[in-house]
Amino acid sequence: MTRQRLFEEIRKKQSYLCIGLDTDINKIPKHLLSQDNPVFAFNKLIIDATRDVCVAYKINTAFYEAMGVAGWQVLEKTVNYIGNDHFKIADAKRGDIGNTSDQYAKAFFHALPFDSVTVAPYMGEDSVKPFLQYEGKWAIVLGLTSNSGAVDFELEPTFVKGFAQNNESNDAYVKSLNPIEMLYEKVLRKVSKWGTVDNLMFVIGATNESYFELVRKIIPDHFLLVPGVGAQGGSLKDISEKAMNRDCGLLVNVSRAVIYASSGEDFVMEAKKAAINYRDEMKTYLKS
Amino acid sequence: MTRQRLFEEIRKKQSYLCIGLDTDINKIPKHLLSQDNPVFAFNKLIIDATRDVCVAYKINTAFYEAMGVAGWQVLEKTVNYIGNDHFKIADAKRGDIGNTSDQYAKAFFHALPFDSVTVAPYMGEDSVKPFLQYEGKWAIVLGLTSNSGAVDFELEPTFVKGFAQNNESNDAYVKSLNPIEMLYEKVLRKVSKWGTVDNLMFVIGATNESYFELVRKIIPDHFLLVPGVGAQGGSLKDISEKAMNRDCGLLVNVSRAVIYASSGEDFVMEAKKAAINYRDEMKTYLKS
Repeated sequence: MTRQRLFEEIRKKQSYLCIGLDTDINKIPKHLLSQDNPVFAFNKLIIDATRDVCVAYKINTAFYEAMGVAGWQVLEKTVNYIGNDHFKIADAKRGDIGNTSDQYAKAFFHALPFDSVTVAPYMGEDSVKPFLQYEGKWAIVLGLTSNSGAVDFELEPTFVKGFAQNNESNDAYVKSLNPIEMLYEKVLRKVSKWGTVDNLMFVIGATNESYFELVRKIIPDHFLLVPGVGAQGGSLKDISEKAMNRDCGLLVNVSRAVIYASSGEDFVMEAKKAAINYRDEMKTYLKS
Repeated sequence: MTRQRLFEEIRKKQSYLCIGLDTDINKIPKHLLSQDNPVFAFNKLIIDATRDVCVAYKINTAFYEAMGVAGWQVLEKTVNYIGNDHFKIADAKRGDIGNTSDQYAKAFFHALPFDSVTVAPYMGEDSVKPFLQYEGKWAIVLGLTSNSGAVDFELEPTFVKGFAQNNESNDAYVKSLNPIEMLYEKVLRKVSKWGTVDNLMFVIGATNESYFELVRKIIPDHFLLVPGVGAQGGSLKDISEKAMNRDCGLLVNVSRAVIYASSGEDFVMEAKKAAINYRDEMKTYLKS
């Protein structure tokens, strides 16, 4: 899906909601367990109930891989069921040396019809670029994530003018350099040069709300995929005010707070209600 | 597989060779393509031919995911076929927020019988720890990888006494800190505190041979998984001399240079010969 088309969908639906299908067989309503394929049955009902109010679905591959081959089958059925009117995200956090990332790109863009894959930046340029070679497909690179571990590396200070070589005896030289940037800033600056606003997005967690203004200074035009609203506690209002750009530029993901809004037989209606509430709130931010 | 058992296998076989099953249907010998399941047929023949001279197999999940559901089936058949006398590595480069990493650990340690998974460190502690909760299972965390992109982030300078907070106005404070370490060194130092030498290994690419002495200063006792020998050009001799410890502490992976040693009907014999050559060279380093 192109950027243009994504923006049209957002405008039409007045929504930048992404629904995360982190479907766990231990958490779906008990009455579905008698079905042949309870996880797919659950996904199908959630998709049918929320199609009109969201623009994207994010499939968290871990939850499907945990079920082995049968899980990969459900993943395939689910992404096909979504169809072509939504932006389909494989939340897979892949990334490896060039010839292996090629294979991951093939897995999600060729063997499966995803529009995008989340990609880990640690291994650098040749690990990201293979995801940028498919027309209308996107790499969504991890910037600043929503979890507690973000402090361990992503928020560590580095030098803007970094360098790479044997580090013996370079301390003096390094210390003479300035200014300082956090590792995630370096990731945004460097990675944004490897692609364009038409094939690259970044993950910025809603729980890091105080960083959104800085993020927009570095990458004013890119779409951001924002997890962490809902169960993780991020504020939709704050991030919308701080990070929306003229093409919206936001896909806000909610997983648990929509799909597990109820664990009873009314789960479809409750998921729909929760999604509509997010859409209605988004409408007001899109207008202002 | 426990550390003790792994060391016994190394001693018994006089080998620390890991064979990488990066099996690509476009690269296997043509005469196999008439088989029902050519990729599994290939893997089975390679495993039978090399079992006695290697201690580990590394399955690169990307090559299987690229084939869709059928690929995940071959992956499952292959890991089961290897059995329990080899250390089985899912080279999957996973890592996500805590509750999602839980699912990945389940995928590889519960739904599938791997001994270990390669894990990307970018998202920090809660993304790594779920892989450390299974008895006899291992996380193999990316340190310094063998690809050209390693310079982009892994080899960037950071501060030993890093800190994480809003970065406005902290430049002066940060600059007063010292000394400097590369990001991959920080990863080794921090991550090694999250587990033990019995459930944590690190990936250090053979192409970074000049860093091995420094790596051994930081983590003298951990096992290292070393890719990059063979097609990528790293030297088995150099890394063995620099990084072997009293429990060997090395698993050296070779993929293409063994499994694609020949593309003809003699590929099984040629793969076996290549593996034996590596084992024979390893024998001499283990003795000295």
